[in-house]
Amino acid sequence: MSERLVLHEYSPSGNCYKVRLTAALAGTRLERREYDIMKGETRTPEFLANINANGRIPVLQVGDRFIPESNAASYFIAEGSNLIPTDPFDHADMLRWMFWEQYNHEPNIATLRFWMGTVGVDNLTDLQRLQMSGKRQAGRAALKLMDDHLNGREWFVADGISLADVCLFAYTHVAGDAEFKLHEYPHVGEWIERIKGQPRYVAMNA
Amino acid sequence: MSERLVLHEYSPSGNCYKVRLTAALAGTRLERREYDIMKGETRTPEFLANINANGRIPVLQVGDRFIPESNAASYFIAEGSNLIPTDPFDHADMLRWMFWEQYNHEPNIATLRFWMGTVGVDNLTDLQRLQMSGKRQAGRAALKLMDDHLNGREWFVADGISLADVCLFAYTHVAGDAEFKLHEYPHVGEWIERIKGQPRYVAMNA
Repeated sequence: MSERLVLHEYSPSGNCYKVRLTAALAGTRLERREYDIMKGETRTPEFLANINANGRIPVLQVGDRFIPESNAASYFIAEGSNLIPTDPFDHADMLRWMFWEQYNHEPNIATLRFWMGTVGVDNLTDLQRLQMSGKRQAGRAALKLMDDHLNGREWFVADGISLADVCLFAYTHVAGDAEFKLHEYPHVGEWIERIKGQPRYVAMNA
Repeated sequence: MSERLVLHEYSPSGNCYKVRLTAALAGTRLERREYDIMKGETRTPEFLANINANGRIPVLQVGDRFIPESNAASYFIAEGSNLIPTDPFDHADMLRWMFWEQYNHEPNIATLRFWMGTVGVDNLTDLQRLQMSGKRQAGRAALKLMDDHLNGREWFVADGISLADVCLFAYTHVAGDAEFKLHEYPHVGEWIERIKGQPRYVAMNA
């Protein structure tokens, strides 16, 4: 890629890690710019006007243009690599898991991790506290669905690692931070080790 | 496409309509099979084992294989049509809006529409009722973000209609069912008419 790539991020976020892990696996160089979301640095007028009107990170800067949404930014980086299947069914199946991740996995597992590990349970609103049990149940269902799918399979889509694995890995491998018991999902556990064993793997805190 | 395409659906769902509208615009024939989600027809052991372990519709059947998730199923159908931009940035930008739709738009606007129009406010749980105000606020923010983006633009991505427009249209054009006031978002209103004016457009209740 000829244009300069800058990741606007809050590095403890799994959504930002997706983009970094994709870049590592694809062998693409990223510059990084850190924002403290706990200090509102992604809700300033400058950020909303110039980086992302939605006030969220990650955002991938491509030259002077911007791609918000972690899975879309990861796709841009992975384009043309072996992380994107070329068969149309496999490609749609990869997107299926990526949309499922944003709808069924992230709002439960990542949100509980953020509430418990970053915000702190004592600082939650009453409504957030009331939602914890539903998110716990939905998060467990998501991990169970992944575990069942990986029973007898090495990767989520077809026969090789794809962006679906990368995007699902980000919050799954740290689900213990939100007190999910990963040992209850043995196929997920093996798949996590399989990803960590990839030659260009980088850890979340790297 | 040579393989038989069957849409497993609950036709009043905007997520199912996305797939039908994509097929219409792309000139692709779909068979349709209806399930009554209010009677639990997508949570039967047969459905979970054979169609979608996640118990949700729509699911696109391609021969004897299945693609859950509305935006992934729509992508499969649109592949190779003018609904999918070929430029890598525009393609990622399209996916960005599709992921944003599933994370910021659908869980607010579609969920309120389902709760108010299908389940009925009197039948909601206390927790659901407590979440209504937050979803109202987030739904309005989503419509405002769309309206600002469409100020001076005809389409969400680059210079032509794409799958981003189709996927965002599905629940936006019926947001009034959930008492969102579409006249407050004039650029969104013009964009809705632009989509309805497409030669092969089909309505949600067709």
